[in-house]
Amino acid sequence: MPRVRTETQVMFFDTDCAGVVHNIAYLRFIEVARTLLGEKVGLGLHEMNRTREYAVVVRTEVDYKSAATLGDTLVIDGWLESFTGAKFWCAFEVRRQEDDKLIVQARQKLGLVQMPKARPARLPADWSEKFGELKAAK
Amino acid sequence: MPRVRTETQVMFFDTDCAGVVHNIAYLRFIEVARTLLGEKVGLGLHEMNRTREYAVVVRTEVDYKSAATLGDTLVIDGWLESFTGAKFWCAFEVRRQEDDKLIVQARQKLGLVQMPKARPARLPADWSEKFGELKAAK
Amino acid sequence: MPRVRTETQVMFFDTDCAGVVHNIAYLRFIEVARTLLGEKVGLGLHEMNRTREYAVVVRTEVDYKSAATLGDTLVIDGWLESFTGAKFWCAFEVRRQEDDKLIVQARQKLGLVQMPKARPARLPADWSEKFGELKAAK
Amino acid sequence: MPRVRTETQVMFFDTDCAGVVHNIAYLRFIEVARTLLGEKVGLGLHEMNRTREYAVVVRTEVDYKSAATLGDTLVIDGWLESFTGAKFWCAFEVRRQEDDKLIVQARQKLGLVQMPKARPARLPADWSEKFGELKAAK
Repeated sequence: MPRVRTETQVMFFDTDCAGVVHNIAYLRFIEVARTLLGEKVGLGLHEMNRTREYAVVVRTEVDYKSAATLGDTLVIDGWLESFTGAKFWCAFEVRRQEDDKLIVQARQKLGLVQMPKARPARLPADWSEKFGELKAAK
Repeated sequence: MPRVRTETQVMFFDTDCAGVVHNIAYLRFIEVARTLLGEKVGLGLHEMNRTREYAVVVRTEVDYKSAATLGDTLVIDGWLESFTGAKFWCAFEVRRQEDDKLIVQARQKLGLVQMPKARPARLPADWSEKFGELKAAK
Repeated sequence: MPRVRTETQVMFFDTDCAGVVHNIAYLRFIEVARTLLGEKVGLGLHEMNRTREYAVVVRTEVDYKSAATLGDTLVIDGWLESFTGAKFWCAFEVRRQEDDKLIVQARQKLGLVQMPKARPARLPADWSEKFGELKAAK
Repeated sequence: MPRVRTETQVMFFDTDCAGVVHNIAYLRFIEVARTLLGEKVGLGLHEMNRTREYAVVVRTEVDYKSAATLGDTLVIDGWLESFTGAKFWCAFEVRRQEDDKLIVQARQKLGLVQMPKARPARLPADWSEKFGELKAAK
């Protein structure tokens, strides 16, 4: 099952004046993990920029479970959850390295789009073979 | 029913190399609307920074319906959807001004937190009176 | 002389855990003013996205004079400072509306670039006529 | 001489619709390097957040030399350039790993500030001993 783990240290620009990591910053952390996950399943950045067939987020769900603060090292796990012919779901967990505290859970649904016309495109043909157990009915 | 409308023009820093507004940028647009909504319901920024009792996002849901591009004027509608004693939901719609095209729908659940201890706090007492029809069972 | 004024209210996402506006956030405020300035001198966003001839920042200088905080209304003044055949300088001042305190001073040098080849392009021909007193020797 | 090297891969959120890395994104790359540099000279994040004595940017200069694009691996070098009793300069170079092309040069002047009063503070006493050759007259 395609799965990645990335790490990031919380910078000043990730925090806000409430003293904790700002809710939007986690979306960047997740995008870094999702990008690495993309490389593993045939959707690498250089390839996407060349073909202009991009993985586009169509839905994001984020649950903020606990707060992280400046200097924390966060560990982001990301994995392919399921897919159909044209869409796929990724899931993510962000934990603080020091105490393994769950900070954020998130899911994102993506589709492939051929730019600049924004025409929907099919997922790579070999996913059914490689990741068949993640294939969803719809 | 507390409701706000804001506008923003899509800047270069809102877009990415796929040629459209990046999915994370909408979270900033929504926060601006949510902030204005907060002013209307007794949760103003200056007040929050003074009391250090902050409205904190605990869940975000975003559906990306259509793409916006550089220079587009976007209209963001935000409203209080429902609340319980300690949490409230806001809802948002982002439309392009020119053609009224729906670009993004989003919902956010928030709670009040007393910093720096991160202790949950009660919503303003007058909400039940003012916005009683939005009060949810749980 | 081409000159613009924009306003912005400091949001949570503009601040950091030191309790003040983060240094990077001002670059967004300045870009909004610069964009409006661009519209006034023939370098509008829609036009740039159509011709793919973009105004590109080649140097930024920012002096942080004083701190702004959550909820502050900031007033950003931007103006065309000087230009040569191929490059131009814009200047900016950010002040807090409430007390007119100077928060940030900045200057940016820009050039026009034809994408995707990144070929330098000439400034609009009518600048010499319209803004002749801002024309610099080099 | 205190010196660090960090790496980052260009993400979608770092780029804009001109097809290249947006000018503001480099400020994040530089802050990551500066933070690591801070750890090396006694100005670590956890320490700063505990004492609320923060390193604050008072001037930024950035020269954009060449464009980077989606998926590029960028190498950021940062070093302590000089210091006086109360202020210090850091310098940075961003190069593309693949071809060692110089993308950005930058310098930042910082001072220490005791928050929330924003009172200027002295640099660590051992800098003169450790980094004496970087000490500037003024």
